[in-house]
Amino acid sequence: MTFKASPLRLSTQSPDFEAQFQQRLHWSADTDAAIEQRVTDILQAVRQEGDAAVLRLSQQFDGLQAASVAELEIPASELQTAFDGLPQPQRQALQQAAARIRRYHEAQKQAAGQSWSYRDEDGSLLGQKVTPLDRAGIYVPGGKAAYPSSVLMNAMPAQVAGVGQIIMVAPTPRGEKNPLVLAAAHVAGVHRVFTIGGAQAIAALAYGTQTVPKVDKITGPGNAYVASAKKHVFGQVGIDMIAGPSEILVLADGSTPPDWVAMDLFSQAEHDELAQSILLCPDAAYIDAVQQAIDRLLPTLPRAAIIAQSLNGRGALIQTRDMDEACAISNRIAPEHLEISSREPQRWEPLLRHAGAIFLGAYTSESLGDYCAGPNHVLPTSGTARFSSPLSVMDFQKRSSLIEVSPAGARQLGAIAQVLAEGEGLQAHAQAAAMRMQAGD
Amino acid sequence: MTFKASPLRLSTQSPDFEAQFQQRLHWSADTDAAIEQRVTDILQAVRQEGDAAVLRLSQQFDGLQAASVAELEIPASELQTAFDGLPQPQRQALQQAAARIRRYHEAQKQAAGQSWSYRDEDGSLLGQKVTPLDRAGIYVPGGKAAYPSSVLMNAMPAQVAGVGQIIMVAPTPRGEKNPLVLAAAHVAGVHRVFTIGGAQAIAALAYGTQTVPKVDKITGPGNAYVASAKKHVFGQVGIDMIAGPSEILVLADGSTPPDWVAMDLFSQAEHDELAQSILLCPDAAYIDAVQQAIDRLLPTLPRAAIIAQSLNGRGALIQTRDMDEACAISNRIAPEHLEISSREPQRWEPLLRHAGAIFLGAYTSESLGDYCAGPNHVLPTSGTARFSSPLSVMDFQKRSSLIEVSPAGARQLGAIAQVLAEGEGLQAHAQAAAMRMQAGD
Repeated sequence: MTFKASPLRLSTQSPDFEAQFQQRLHWSADTDAAIEQRVTDILQAVRQEGDAAVLRLSQQFDGLQAASVAELEIPASELQTAFDGLPQPQRQALQQAAARIRRYHEAQKQAAGQSWSYRDEDGSLLGQKVTPLDRAGIYVPGGKAAYPSSVLMNAMPAQVAGVGQIIMVAPTPRGEKNPLVLAAAHVAGVHRVFTIGGAQAIAALAYGTQTVPKVDKITGPGNAYVASAKKHVFGQVGIDMIAGPSEILVLADGSTPPDWVAMDLFSQAEHDELAQSILLCPDAAYIDAVQQAIDRLLPTLPRAAIIAQSLNGRGALIQTRDMDEACAISNRIAPEHLEISSREPQRWEPLLRHAGAIFLGAYTSESLGDYCAGPNHVLPTSGTARFSSPLSVMDFQKRSSLIEVSPAGARQLGAIAQVLAEGEGLQAHAQAAAMRMQAGD
Repeated sequence: MTFKASPLRLSTQSPDFEAQFQQRLHWSADTDAAIEQRVTDILQAVRQEGDAAVLRLSQQFDGLQAASVAELEIPASELQTAFDGLPQPQRQALQQAAARIRRYHEAQKQAAGQSWSYRDEDGSLLGQKVTPLDRAGIYVPGGKAAYPSSVLMNAMPAQVAGVGQIIMVAPTPRGEKNPLVLAAAHVAGVHRVFTIGGAQAIAALAYGTQTVPKVDKITGPGNAYVASAKKHVFGQVGIDMIAGPSEILVLADGSTPPDWVAMDLFSQAEHDELAQSILLCPDAAYIDAVQQAIDRLLPTLPRAAIIAQSLNGRGALIQTRDMDEACAISNRIAPEHLEISSREPQRWEPLLRHAGAIFLGAYTSESLGDYCAGPNHVLPTSGTARFSSPLSVMDFQKRSSLIEVSPAGARQLGAIAQVLAEGEGLQAHAQAAAMRMQAGD
């Protein structure tokens, strides 16, 4: 069977562009009431019954027979064995990727994750102390979306941050374990792994059970149940984000081989049918060439069916007036992945305000970033790059303000605080400040 | 009427300490189904009808009669007038507080909010670009909790971050405006102010209406409706956090005048009946002295009724074995405000891992931090300091990863990416990497 992919062809000069563009972008994260109800029930069961509920639900959903949750833990030795058993190229690739990811996140910690302080004129100290979380939980999906790269990308920033304990949960439907996932956990320094999944795994991490330790934050992708459960436990623990379908936007000036751009659009589309691949380019002939490359290359790919469905349903090839307009449209989309496939990527980069990750120049395929360039591949989707950021070391740290007011500072600040506290009708606040003002040095 | 406050007296040496301690700490943020349903209805109404729904709901809940939402906007000139009309000490206090808050947040931006990049051995560039949000929305409660200091603390980090437009919403039940709040908006550089509140204001900011611009992130405290609405629109926009009741924990070695500590406990308790004030101290005689100070000072305060209710219902004076144990208990609580009322605050500070803000030494009353020391007073509550942080400049910025792979880097990284992509069954990812490897320089 041959698949054909014809992403919607649009031009910003067409009178119906705006309507068609809006329609193509539309993706609703609206929740399903039936899923919500089931998730609420699961959370409550795990909260109340702990291990017993986790065991029952793992049997029900994953077909796992176990006498205790302890049996669902994978010992460190088994992670090591999984790593040792991999073909050498895979072992090496995992380690090289991990080394590059570690280096990037260490640079990130150095640049933005350090404590600091200063003293003002009165000798008062003001600052911020940065500390790692005690415990982080990482959700790794089972089945078709069980990606070892996700293990690295979630666990390594936690490890670099200095998190005390990293707990991974990963469902193993019918007991099938993915050796690459286990090996990645070994390489990334995960401390404990439980073969539990779904909303019950999120609940176990958020509330703790007799066997699964309660964590401070949960990160990692998952299906609709996992996403709903994460949203519910937010507040009880920290969460990373609720991810929508993956997206790529390629901004092309026509200088990159069309085959490369076609393959980059495919590499997003092959993730799933709802993934979105968009090309923005001022050159109609180049867009034609990319479409021809799509036609020629698609049949060579094993996931052609998924790619075709994604490109036909959600893809778009958009002709813009010029590169400036392409940048403006990109900012409206705020894409997860943004490739500037141009001879002058540095010219356009400053114009691009919202994106999870920006890939500059023809050689920077998104797939290099997905696996091993160094930056995190957990990125804001569905336009949330307007206000949120890639998963980072800072997500596994928290900050505490530090204030040490000197006796002289207490007089200076007390005068201000007193006036404002009285203005707000808070006399104890005012008095607490006044008492320090009256004291001698 | 005289009020008496007797915070629960506990000792860690008592056999029932653990049970009593847990019970006192307990506070449930569980949501009210009726509120949830009304909030869902309000969000949907504003999403579908825009201005019309905002007008209708503002009339219903705040008793505001207006022909259009535009009439509910307070022009910049009115903010200026409010500021000019304040007594000189209030004008000066607002400006001094703002200057100190600005300086702290500028130091924060300098330390942790800057773009950075490096080149690896292959000449590939890796980095992180930091950009401000386009638009932020700030919720300021009406009624008894209308605090000008909250306006400064929410708006100024946004302003320092470089947010393009800061939109403030503040309900004015029966049209009553608080001149200090308006003046604070003027001082803090708020761009637009609408006198709308409740879930309808959150909806207007999250979805946008014909008159109210859609923002990228919403911060600021509010009642149960506002909190529920923020939780619902999370994902559509960013939010800061869902705040619980305010808390203070005082860690005392007995060297601070007991009156000061009593007043600091009061200054948290006077916020509301659910606020929590806890003293941890190894010295029983000192705890007695604090209780005597409570008895003596409470009747002098206008909010004695609220303070008494808070201290009696949720307060605790806990005798510990030593200061080390006090630090360990503090870490379990992860308090919003943590005073180290000791001659050696620097000795204990490194042991304290979880807290929103740490106030070092007897002169550093929490109230100085609330108004004007410089750090933000929007802090994680209810133990969320385990994983979250004070409101900061970084909350009004987002980061984009930057990756520019050189031709040599593409060969190096391509080899790694290919192996991992094939291991995940993602052939288009592998091909996209391979194509770059085959190309000449």
